[in-house]
Amino acid sequence: MDKSHISKSFKETQAHICNVLENMDGLSSFRTDSWGREEGGGGQTNTIKDGRIIEKGGVAFSEVFGPVSEQMSRQLKLEGKSFFATGVSIVLHSKAIHHPIIHMNIRYFEMDDQHYWFGGGIDLTPIYVNKELAVKFHKKLKSLCDRYDKSMYPKFKKGADDYFYVPHRKESRGIGGVFFDHFSGNDMLNKEQILSFCLDLGKLFPELYEDQILNAIELNEMNRQWQLLRRSRYVEFNLLHDRGTKFGIYSGGRTESILLSMPPDASWVYDFQVEEDTLESQTQQYLYRPVDWVRI
Amino acid sequence: MDKSHISKSFKETQAHICNVLENMDGLSSFRTDSWGREEGGGGQTNTIKDGRIIEKGGVAFSEVFGPVSEQMSRQLKLEGKSFFATGVSIVLHSKAIHHPIIHMNIRYFEMDDQHYWFGGGIDLTPIYVNKELAVKFHKKLKSLCDRYDKSMYPKFKKGADDYFYVPHRKESRGIGGVFFDHFSGNDMLNKEQILSFCLDLGKLFPELYEDQILNAIELNEMNRQWQLLRRSRYVEFNLLHDRGTKFGIYSGGRTESILLSMPPDASWVYDFQVEEDTLESQTQQYLYRPVDWVRI
Repeated sequence: MDKSHISKSFKETQAHICNVLENMDGLSSFRTDSWGREEGGGGQTNTIKDGRIIEKGGVAFSEVFGPVSEQMSRQLKLEGKSFFATGVSIVLHSKAIHHPIIHMNIRYFEMDDQHYWFGGGIDLTPIYVNKELAVKFHKKLKSLCDRYDKSMYPKFKKGADDYFYVPHRKESRGIGGVFFDHFSGNDMLNKEQILSFCLDLGKLFPELYEDQILNAIELNEMNRQWQLLRRSRYVEFNLLHDRGTKFGIYSGGRTESILLSMPPDASWVYDFQVEEDTLESQTQQYLYRPVDWVRI
Repeated sequence: MDKSHISKSFKETQAHICNVLENMDGLSSFRTDSWGREEGGGGQTNTIKDGRIIEKGGVAFSEVFGPVSEQMSRQLKLEGKSFFATGVSIVLHSKAIHHPIIHMNIRYFEMDDQHYWFGGGIDLTPIYVNKELAVKFHKKLKSLCDRYDKSMYPKFKKGADDYFYVPHRKESRGIGGVFFDHFSGNDMLNKEQILSFCLDLGKLFPELYEDQILNAIELNEMNRQWQLLRRSRYVEFNLLHDRGTKFGIYSGGRTESILLSMPPDASWVYDFQVEEDTLESQTQQYLYRPVDWVRI
């Protein structure tokens, strides 16, 4: 199984997801931008905005390769001379305040045509945490993981809790999900099976999103401000910590494709404090420490 | 001249600037938060919002010290066992769209009670570049620099052009100003004189800001969106590149004080393109390459 097969299947995953999301949204459709990278490779960035459900979203495919630049080796700690990377990245910012931000990424990496690994993850950033929907999200992820290897969900769930933790805010960016990196297989999974797992995550993505956009809560004036504040925390995580963003920026990727994760708007208020016993304080409680959602 | 003298004079600079800004704004006043840092030191963060002129602003003083942590040495490349750092940082986001974002920072750093250096800078991020006001800003900075050493302005002006350049956007964050770092003196300036220069920058700051808030331009609907877009670029620079932000985050500083530079709001639009021959395109032209403002 060579890399071109992997990147082809990722591209098909992108097309499939866009297709389902367009039907789900019903109002807006994706715009497609193809781009090339001077040093090698390129991608296709599909974006959507002002939809019935999706306010701003992107489903990006890329396949980039070439020499490891001095900046990449220093900033990204890549040891090797040449790299190949392909992946699909998705971030959807919903219009409705009671809908979460959802993110998914699957990627394949190869160094010097030898060492390879997969990475990826799905996580949810609710503006307001809905316990039942958080449980549903995690149970579906667990059930997918369990089909491959029972040890995966606990490991990858912890991976998400660790990765999406924002130290300077002492909180998680959301309710987590699964996250893995530098994964080249184990006793249970060979290369083909990891790819199959990644593609299954991709297939599951639209369903996971659809699960979340059904509920509705009573809105008050506070809600919109809270959405803007949660969105600004999302910006902080992505620009300060996100590996995909860093990889894109330091490997000379296409800026607009890298930053399609940014929300349509965001707001910063100095020393914002939530009021006690509000929907906002309930959500904040869920972010302080990892929650065992499948057993809660 | 020991470090406590320097930090005392920085604190006085903070008080002076807040005093002048409050009088200038006339409507809002500063709120003061004092904070301590577990490993040593602390600060005083003064913030202002919803003023007549200032929509969101902060004037922060800090004096922090202690052992160099593993994270600081790795992320900030600090070579030494203990550090001392004191400084004043200011960012003001004006309400009016025709007013620029203004930033100033002066700081003093000491490693292992031996090596010391100063750093600092002032720069302007206009939403719309006004040529005359940009020239006025730079001429005043040059004239202050020239009082100390004729070689300073060209060097520090280039310092700002380099530092405030945003590679992933291929543009400067604004019209620059002066910026210097790791400056411990030269043939012309000893330690006392560098301190005096830093304090003079602080004294000049309110005047530089007042110069900018006099002009008015015709507004149309595009302007507010453009302000939100320029503000989002400001966020990108600060979270991806700003040394002060990185230092604060990795030295375990107080998050709300570090991120007071964030704008009240910001907006991201995928692949935003300005229209030709508009005020927006004129401003963008000024950001592509350094401008010799004192000779334009």
